[in-house]
Amino acid sequence: MAYLHKYNFQENTMAKKFFSEKNLKFTIFDVHNVENLLTHDRFSDYNKESFEMILDTAKTIGINFMYPLYSEMDKNAPEYTGTTIKVNPAVRQYMNISGEGGWINAMFPAEHGGQQMPLSLFNACMFIFASANYSLSVYPGLTTGAAGLIYNYGTEELKKNFAEKMVTGKWQGTMALTEPEAGSSLSDVKTSAEPTPNGYYLIKGQKTFISAGDHDNADNIIHLMLARIKGAPAGVKGLSLFVVPKYRISGPDKLEFNDVNCAGCYHKMGYRGAPIAQLSIGESDDCRGYLLGEQNLGLTYMFRMMNEARINVGLGATAISSAAYYAALEYTNERLQGRKIDEKNPLNPQIPIIEHADIKRMLLQQRAIVEGSLSLMVYSGKLVDLISVTGSEEKERYELLLEFLTPIVKTYPSEMGIVSTSQAIQCLGGYGYSSEFPVEQYMRDARIHPIHEGTTGIQGMDLLGRKVTMKKGAAVKIYLEEIKKSIEEASGFTVLKPFASNLEDAISLWKNTTNSLLGIAAKGEIDLFMADATLYLELSGIICIAWQWLLQGIAVQKINDKNFSEGKMFTLKYFFEYELPKIHGLAIRLKNADGITLKMMPEYFED
Amino acid sequence: MAYLHKYNFQENTMAKKFFSEKNLKFTIFDVHNVENLLTHDRFSDYNKESFEMILDTAKTIGINFMYPLYSEMDKNAPEYTGTTIKVNPAVRQYMNISGEGGWINAMFPAEHGGQQMPLSLFNACMFIFASANYSLSVYPGLTTGAAGLIYNYGTEELKKNFAEKMVTGKWQGTMALTEPEAGSSLSDVKTSAEPTPNGYYLIKGQKTFISAGDHDNADNIIHLMLARIKGAPAGVKGLSLFVVPKYRISGPDKLEFNDVNCAGCYHKMGYRGAPIAQLSIGESDDCRGYLLGEQNLGLTYMFRMMNEARINVGLGATAISSAAYYAALEYTNERLQGRKIDEKNPLNPQIPIIEHADIKRMLLQQRAIVEGSLSLMVYSGKLVDLISVTGSEEKERYELLLEFLTPIVKTYPSEMGIVSTSQAIQCLGGYGYSSEFPVEQYMRDARIHPIHEGTTGIQGMDLLGRKVTMKKGAAVKIYLEEIKKSIEEASGFTVLKPFASNLEDAISLWKNTTNSLLGIAAKGEIDLFMADATLYLELSGIICIAWQWLLQGIAVQKINDKNFSEGKMFTLKYFFEYELPKIHGLAIRLKNADGITLKMMPEYFED
Repeated sequence: MAYLHKYNFQENTMAKKFFSEKNLKFTIFDVHNVENLLTHDRFSDYNKESFEMILDTAKTIGINFMYPLYSEMDKNAPEYTGTTIKVNPAVRQYMNISGEGGWINAMFPAEHGGQQMPLSLFNACMFIFASANYSLSVYPGLTTGAAGLIYNYGTEELKKNFAEKMVTGKWQGTMALTEPEAGSSLSDVKTSAEPTPNGYYLIKGQKTFISAGDHDNADNIIHLMLARIKGAPAGVKGLSLFVVPKYRISGPDKLEFNDVNCAGCYHKMGYRGAPIAQLSIGESDDCRGYLLGEQNLGLTYMFRMMNEARINVGLGATAISSAAYYAALEYTNERLQGRKIDEKNPLNPQIPIIEHADIKRMLLQQRAIVEGSLSLMVYSGKLVDLISVTGSEEKERYELLLEFLTPIVKTYPSEMGIVSTSQAIQCLGGYGYSSEFPVEQYMRDARIHPIHEGTTGIQGMDLLGRKVTMKKGAAVKIYLEEIKKSIEEASGFTVLKPFASNLEDAISLWKNTTNSLLGIAAKGEIDLFMADATLYLELSGIICIAWQWLLQGIAVQKINDKNFSEGKMFTLKYFFEYELPKIHGLAIRLKNADGITLKMMPEYFED
Repeated sequence: MAYLHKYNFQENTMAKKFFSEKNLKFTIFDVHNVENLLTHDRFSDYNKESFEMILDTAKTIGINFMYPLYSEMDKNAPEYTGTTIKVNPAVRQYMNISGEGGWINAMFPAEHGGQQMPLSLFNACMFIFASANYSLSVYPGLTTGAAGLIYNYGTEELKKNFAEKMVTGKWQGTMALTEPEAGSSLSDVKTSAEPTPNGYYLIKGQKTFISAGDHDNADNIIHLMLARIKGAPAGVKGLSLFVVPKYRISGPDKLEFNDVNCAGCYHKMGYRGAPIAQLSIGESDDCRGYLLGEQNLGLTYMFRMMNEARINVGLGATAISSAAYYAALEYTNERLQGRKIDEKNPLNPQIPIIEHADIKRMLLQQRAIVEGSLSLMVYSGKLVDLISVTGSEEKERYELLLEFLTPIVKTYPSEMGIVSTSQAIQCLGGYGYSSEFPVEQYMRDARIHPIHEGTTGIQGMDLLGRKVTMKKGAAVKIYLEEIKKSIEEASGFTVLKPFASNLEDAISLWKNTTNSLLGIAAKGEIDLFMADATLYLELSGIICIAWQWLLQGIAVQKINDKNFSEGKMFTLKYFFEYELPKIHGLAIRLKNADGITLKMMPEYFED
């Protein structure tokens, strides 16, 4: 098809690049100095060189194995066979690579067979994997979460029977929380667990939207499942966590079907390489579940890993936006169209569209979202690491800070990921809308993130209703102290002074807004206090990312790399000049709290 | 599959409603009083009853024929066969319905065989069609545009040979402008036209992204094609418009192939029911084109219909958002999840999610976008009608107003359509992300609109660079006069006074921002003046829709319908409280014009 334009119908239209190694290292080492973690015993097996080697391995896997499958796994999505879900055979290979390479248990402590890898490093690798192929990256990630729960709270038998197999990549792990009637409202989980004299429980119920909840590329599927023991209290206080395998162990190296039935899989807008299953459990009253930890503490265990799970979502969203951004950057550098505004001669050659101001604005927005979010992801990963190595007082400080940041970490990249990937499409114009190019897939993939692991609405309520008020505002206090430190440091650099001052003003506005809302809460008007929590989260997210950009600005002052530094500084300026001003509209709304959405009755929507 | 949740895997999960008849009539009759047009001779065949009958016919076609095909046409998208594009056989039926029902030439004057239907009424019908099934609705719409050009500028022979066949729906019309190297930059169109002694021209070149550019459900495809006559000036001044049929007439009722070759079709993110073709014209040097009107006036003719084409895009975006909104509304009324914030007993039943404040906020946003945009669509349609029936001075006033509004009319619904359909997905949570439900398709369909018929970036430059400055600001002056009238009228109603006053403040801010930008232009810094034109368009769009909401507020005062009126007033309040404040952030940015995007060099994006 050589007569067609080079961008048309080519078989391989993937961009050359999907993440920036230089920026990733800059964020880890120059902005957040994660190598400082290595002074702690837990991480003493690592040094900066081994960090770089590990990143290099991740890069090789991402480029050579994962990225080439990105489009194929979308176009040939998983299909329900009647008993299981058929996925791309590469899934088994990737799970093997992950198991053999030690990626599944990389962060586990040595006593659990792990490598004690810092999360900040591991997440840098996950960022590479997710930007190469988000759907593929979730299979081992889910297994890590499930196996980690078993190692943390399970008996030796559970560890031996299940977790040890899972970390090899042969067995898939899942989190089976959601039910048809219990999505955002986990207190309504109905799956039941009946004790038997044999130590196990008989499980019965329906689970839905279970990621990798069944597929034909693992020898077994191990569900970490929320269920209610007969007689347990109603609500979240009556939920227990069970290990529920698809095949139970019936003898040495022998498995038998455990009555976990795959009832279907959803077809999705994007994120199509990973199957989302509907499960029907105990249809023949023969599904055995093994209690993990204590009765009725299921949600507590789940929530102990929730911060990390939510960082993971933010990271996935950031990674997808990164890949879309580099596709847009490559295209806009190559695509010739139009001329400078003051060029009137149509016979002069067209210019690459990256020279048009509006294209640069769209690219800067994407870069600001990607690199601002990535900085926050690394920062929060480092907090998890610090929590694992520091003593009680310091530890509590990091824990509170992480608790406060989590809804932002989850939501900012997720919501702005839609905007960012959509801008990537816009940069490519009609080509961006075509499936012959990778960019539209990024937007479809990105759309999942404001939904899973707690919707944006749920995150907003978490931030305003729990995190802001927790321990009498202790988390807020710590957060503001950290920002203040950054503002002070930035003020020492002439070039950063105006931005430090902008951030200071933004923090003032945030404090006023927060106090205004807390005033409503103090009057007992909780409905009104919470009504615009989503907007409060949006406001808080923008300011938090401005802070991350200021941190990057500080780090830039210490390096010597002209184009990279100029690019960073312009992106920082972009963020402060184009994104940060959005807080004014949000603050006006939040202070005018007049309860429109409370007074609007459902019947007024009728027409 | 009765054991599955009612929302899972059902075959028919389409919402019951996709547009509001009541709101459509309210907008046409109560807000914009389009029946006043009927006093003009041109429309004297119509009365309010016939308006309603026509709307009723459109509704029947939309509900019974178009809507049931909505999902199917997405799932079985057009495919290239090697010579043409195979589309759903329903396309032929729909083209026949459109031809026989007089929809294709409805607005044409009687002397062209048309029914002189007002555009404001026709667009109300198009709104119904596009909300039922956007992809299907474009086939006759494109034919209308192409046939209209032939009737307006063509010879009697061209009318007889082509236009008369097109309006029957048997022959498809297209607009063939874009080329691989000439998308936004039409001045680079290279398709050539060589005069012959026989009166026709030999056409040769490549066209791409041609909507309905070839398919197997029409007996012929008639392209209205931009090409450059050999020796014509470079740039847009050398473009002529040609009628280029796929099959030319070789005798009475005889057709022969005209060397217009279909070279492929794009696969798209959404809007998949309509094929977007790549054409290779004159491969055997045997493609005959017939000049329309005069040489080198091609773009002028095209632009005379551009306002209407751009209203059409805005209308399509509004319609898609409407369908997504009603799907979300239906789901949120039925879906039970969670409890009131102050309800602590998990044994009490769950409530419909429409009772949660954040869900109502998301629904209000969608409604505000849909109904605000629809009002602007009807308003601008009415301007086109007034232009067709009024005398010169009044006519120029309407023309200038329409010119000014067009970039907003095209862009606000298109850009906000992404937000609105995305909110619809969010209302459905995981179900919204699943293809088993219609909502994710709406978001994919909506994404085309900021791209086609001039991207958002192009519209921004049009508004700021041409419309604001045209005739020494005459269009702006008229626009502001119209808004002032509305503010004055609204101020007469106590309940509207605060919003009238808000709009007055917003207009002040808009004027200051505009003057600040014009100050930059006056210094000759045109690059800087234009750098943030897209943001200026966003600012202008929000204010313009606030005006349309004020007009709706005025109309509400005159009707008596409790739930509808309450709903309207709350949606108006929502717009003024949540959407309008966004102008502050935009204005800050626009006044700080510091040229970040001009100074950011392409090489700074390297890393």
